[in-house]
Amino acid sequence: MTAAIHDTADPGQRKHARGQRTRAIILDRAARIAIAEGLEGLSIGRLADDLGMSKSGLFAHFGSKEGLQIATVAFSRDRFKREVIDQVAGHVPSPGLSRLWALANAYLERVEQNAARGGCFLYNVSAEFDARPGAVRDAVAASLSAWLDALEANVRAAVVNGELAPGTDIRLLTFELSALLFAANRHSLLLDDNNAFDMARRAAAQLLRRVMTNEEPLELPSFPAN
Amino acid sequence: MTAAIHDTADPGQRKHARGQRTRAIILDRAARIAIAEGLEGLSIGRLADDLGMSKSGLFAHFGSKEGLQIATVAFSRDRFKREVIDQVAGHVPSPGLSRLWALANAYLERVEQNAARGGCFLYNVSAEFDARPGAVRDAVAASLSAWLDALEANVRAAVVNGELAPGTDIRLLTFELSALLFAANRHSLLLDDNNAFDMARRAAAQLLRRVMTNEEPLELPSFPAN
Repeated sequence: MTAAIHDTADPGQRKHARGQRTRAIILDRAARIAIAEGLEGLSIGRLADDLGMSKSGLFAHFGSKEGLQIATVAFSRDRFKREVIDQVAGHVPSPGLSRLWALANAYLERVEQNAARGGCFLYNVSAEFDARPGAVRDAVAASLSAWLDALEANVRAAVVNGELAPGTDIRLLTFELSALLFAANRHSLLLDDNNAFDMARRAAAQLLRRVMTNEEPLELPSFPAN
Repeated sequence: MTAAIHDTADPGQRKHARGQRTRAIILDRAARIAIAEGLEGLSIGRLADDLGMSKSGLFAHFGSKEGLQIATVAFSRDRFKREVIDQVAGHVPSPGLSRLWALANAYLERVEQNAARGGCFLYNVSAEFDARPGAVRDAVAASLSAWLDALEANVRAAVVNGELAPGTDIRLLTFELSALLFAANRHSLLLDDNNAFDMARRAAAQLLRRVMTNEEPLELPSFPAN
């Protein structure tokens, strides 16, 4: 992909690719600030200082603090989709119980890896914006819904596949599973509880086994090291 | 209690009682701001404006923004203990399964009642301060631990009483139960999902039934209307 961009003779296209890379660098930094200090901790001035860029350049990108907050939420959501949801789908080709279990584990691994910088973006901004009506809250709610939808689609597929019992309450199981995953974030970060990920994994496995139609162990696909 | 304060002839004691009432009014307002906008949204200047009080008076009470944040966390924790934990203990005299179930339901009722002003204080500040080392985070972590301890003590008592199966993983069950309660907060507030409380109640009941030693229904004590 990078090679293709460099090979192109079109200067407009090169400029666009450079702009996209700059935008990604800015939003990656913005997401790190938001995880640690909240989306309210984000301001164009603060971000310009952090990155050694001009405020006017950042204004040109995002227009306002709210624009920057919304772009940061969208960036984190896209990255999570690419690095977790699509990644798992690449290794577990069909929806169902295995993909659901892989998704849950991929979420926990990611939070564990990102613990030092504040854990899960979605967990943090969900709590921050739940009572502040407006476009930022709408973007956060859409991100949460997208994650719940990804889990729910696989719960539903698992029922259709006959891996989970017919009559399983699909929404309730999704609610329970997501609750455990977010709780791992809470306990590991705030209580420095290193068992939190293991507790969430065991609880999620118990939850699924209660409605699984056979006794086979829940197994993870082997992911290539990256 | 109020009568006793008014009856006292000691002016020092009357002054102290007045000071305590003023402090409670200030911290109640501070807690409301923190639920909606975060503890970082709290400042002595902002609070002084909101309450029509002098900044210097508030400084005398709390010393600094951090002092105000810590006092707000402690105030909310004490109030939750008084209005939820002690209240439930008053109606269910002995620790065990009934008190555990009553606590879970009292938590959900309280969040539902407070939804319009942003739900659960502890849920919000836990996410806000998990990655910010310092005295405020320590106070928040202590509040979360106190709530988990209250649940865990009743899980343990239920096992000792023989209401839950011997060998029940007490910490894990506490983790799972608390995860469901906080998730009700997330779904009701951010997703405007009115089913969230019912889902949490059904999931908590299923969780307990899995390890209950008899088939009796989980029942709530009758609380007097207040």
